[in-house]
Amino acid sequence: MSPITPLPSVSMAESRHLARPPRCWIDTLPTPEGQRVTVSGWLHHLRELKSVAFLLVRDTSGVVQVVLDDPDTRGMVAALPHESVITVTGTLVAAKNAPGGCEVHDPVVTVISAALEEPVLDLYRPELDAQQSTLLDHAAVALRHPRRAAAYRLLAAALAGFRQVLTAQRFTEITTPKIIGAAPEGGANVFRLDYFGQSAYLAQSPQLYKQIMVGVYERVFETAPAFRAEPHATTRHLSQFYSLDMEMGFIEDHHTVMEMLTGVLRGMIGAMADSGGLELLEIPVPVVPSVIPEVHFRDALDLLGDAFESDLRDEPDLAPEHERWLGDWAMRQFGSDWLFVTGYPMRKRPFYTHPEPGDPRWSNSFDLLYKGLEVVTGGQRLHRLEDYEQALASRGIDAEPFAGYLEAFRSGMPPHGGFALGLERLVMQLCGIRNVRAIALFPRDLTRIAP
Amino acid sequence: MSPITPLPSVSMAESRHLARPPRCWIDTLPTPEGQRVTVSGWLHHLRELKSVAFLLVRDTSGVVQVVLDDPDTRGMVAALPHESVITVTGTLVAAKNAPGGCEVHDPVVTVISAALEEPVLDLYRPELDAQQSTLLDHAAVALRHPRRAAAYRLLAAALAGFRQVLTAQRFTEITTPKIIGAAPEGGANVFRLDYFGQSAYLAQSPQLYKQIMVGVYERVFETAPAFRAEPHATTRHLSQFYSLDMEMGFIEDHHTVMEMLTGVLRGMIGAMADSGGLELLEIPVPVVPSVIPEVHFRDALDLLGDAFESDLRDEPDLAPEHERWLGDWAMRQFGSDWLFVTGYPMRKRPFYTHPEPGDPRWSNSFDLLYKGLEVVTGGQRLHRLEDYEQALASRGIDAEPFAGYLEAFRSGMPPHGGFALGLERLVMQLCGIRNVRAIALFPRDLTRIAP
Repeated sequence: MSPITPLPSVSMAESRHLARPPRCWIDTLPTPEGQRVTVSGWLHHLRELKSVAFLLVRDTSGVVQVVLDDPDTRGMVAALPHESVITVTGTLVAAKNAPGGCEVHDPVVTVISAALEEPVLDLYRPELDAQQSTLLDHAAVALRHPRRAAAYRLLAAALAGFRQVLTAQRFTEITTPKIIGAAPEGGANVFRLDYFGQSAYLAQSPQLYKQIMVGVYERVFETAPAFRAEPHATTRHLSQFYSLDMEMGFIEDHHTVMEMLTGVLRGMIGAMADSGGLELLEIPVPVVPSVIPEVHFRDALDLLGDAFESDLRDEPDLAPEHERWLGDWAMRQFGSDWLFVTGYPMRKRPFYTHPEPGDPRWSNSFDLLYKGLEVVTGGQRLHRLEDYEQALASRGIDAEPFAGYLEAFRSGMPPHGGFALGLERLVMQLCGIRNVRAIALFPRDLTRIAP
Repeated sequence: MSPITPLPSVSMAESRHLARPPRCWIDTLPTPEGQRVTVSGWLHHLRELKSVAFLLVRDTSGVVQVVLDDPDTRGMVAALPHESVITVTGTLVAAKNAPGGCEVHDPVVTVISAALEEPVLDLYRPELDAQQSTLLDHAAVALRHPRRAAAYRLLAAALAGFRQVLTAQRFTEITTPKIIGAAPEGGANVFRLDYFGQSAYLAQSPQLYKQIMVGVYERVFETAPAFRAEPHATTRHLSQFYSLDMEMGFIEDHHTVMEMLTGVLRGMIGAMADSGGLELLEIPVPVVPSVIPEVHFRDALDLLGDAFESDLRDEPDLAPEHERWLGDWAMRQFGSDWLFVTGYPMRKRPFYTHPEPGDPRWSNSFDLLYKGLEVVTGGQRLHRLEDYEQALASRGIDAEPFAGYLEAFRSGMPPHGGFALGLERLVMQLCGIRNVRAIALFPRDLTRIAP
């Protein structure tokens, strides 16, 4: 028998009491040479022919086919609803047309936990045929579909890739408060909660904390839920999303952050490709150019003004159709799905934004578009206390609630910057999925708060 | 010059405009052979002697000594407050008594960002001499102290170790909602928030979601903030803590989970040791035995009854002094800092707890004590719908809010279990720190919500 790494703590019941071989993950089944194997998982499907039935067993790693010809076993399995949990021990035999190139013969099938009824969705079909609201209402079932399980696994892979790149670049992971005492910038779109009798808020972003921590570790990242009371129902927004944040010191300007981001994206997409999920879902691996093209906001408005035949020079931000047009333009001009738009007007960026040296109408900030949708926001921040005091005063923001944050700038802070990236939105766009609810686990929006 | 890995995006300003060598992390300075080097960081301290001054520069990786003998440079640096941000280029020379075995001579010192004033705390002293409340109020400064920065870095290392072990064991990372529509088990100690005009709650634990996801991926973990409205001020509780959760299917019973947990702890402590933080803080590396000793709750009560000379047989839980006594007992009896207490009474465990086969007064659950403090809780869960329906009914809990969760059990769930671990509390106890506020970044409690 070819070497199988023993899996600790898996199916000890079977191996001890039934003298079965220990359980094997389906994707590590040995080269079939007639040996006995045990697999455990869900009854994915049963296809009954006249003289034989084919049972598909699904575990976390894959699906294997089991050939049932004994009438008693066949009858017993046929009486089980889909999704029943079973263990199968049998002889592994090569079978060119079966999934994985092998199948299990002469099986002993044991029921671990029978499903009570047929599931509300046909999980064995190649695609789930149901409305999105049905899929979300029945998440406990819908998520089991192999294509959906693979899609959500891409989130985990992208997340691991993010952490891996930044850890290798000496970033330190931090975990910061999600309950905050003061609502930054006036409290728009912030959830309010009762904190032992006083008002508190859910953090929209770890921005202020990650800047404080640049004073400690120079380079920090956080991966955590963030909360926005989005009053609009869109295909791109959720009221809880998973935010990947980084911040780094000793930068030249926002371009240092953009370079680091380019490497991070390459690592995230590499991890998604390595996970096998993109292949399973037939999604081409997105290409990240070594240098992502860049257009200044001012020049973007000129291009858009010509294209839309209107005067956009005073626009403070890009509308979704403008982003889409720029995405197409970047593909025509540079052959790139990616485009940095830099220099957004200071009046549209938050108070901590660093202005463009020489022209303070513009900022040292950027958005990154992928196929015409903004997927990352970042930039250089102010690093001198007097600049903060001036920025807060000129925007009419009371500095007092920010005292604990501003203290970091009294004590020496290097030029620094960072970015924030919504994990679900990025993976959605990379995968060509049209609604963020189809990639967020248990999404939360204006009307949905369960399951 | 010995090979220095070029650091992308670090101090490009200096290298481009000043023809300095590129910036080097202090802990990767080359073997000193008289070459020119550049370091950047914070002015950690300046020690002035008669003919010379010693400047300590601190970056995220360490501290290096710079010898100042030029009067102008010396005067300029002496005028800077501690924590000013500077860049130093000079000649690297071996120096046995200097930190890292080398020092920088003939320096050119450039100020990147001067501190405005002396910091409120003397960060250059070996220990911070201040009340805890002062340290927390001035977190932006206090966290910069090398010992404190090292302590918080242990959290990051332990977290990375947790993820690494479980990923290698085929666990899939999940991210679940922190805003939930129904308060589990009556809503005690739950924060309530206003969710677009309706009541919602902050999740105390991802328990129900990770069980649903066992039906999808068999093995899952989550690392995320969790929220408890703890009405007591203790040294062990926070209202936001960082919860490490896992859940796995196809277990024999809670012992399968305990085995996996033992491996996880070994991985977490290994990562803490590898980070160098334990050594820097002079904390001995905690030993995890290959099998952690176990005592049944019933037997623990007998032992405690004898020790405390009182009848404890009807106690539903262990008091802190009981846990401490058991910690000492485990050391006397087994030479172990660790002790599993198993079989806690069903009436004290949550509704999803699996009873002990043969004696339903007890449960297939465990707490893990380290040096007499509970640091992990886990166990086997129910996996049959009828058991859930009975458990909820017998506790008088309305099943309706749990419909989306219970659906997972209609469709075949394997025997499963898992554990939850409070990151700050575990690292506190492993490091012999007496208050969880001294290891949580920006802690939240009854009275503290800033910074």
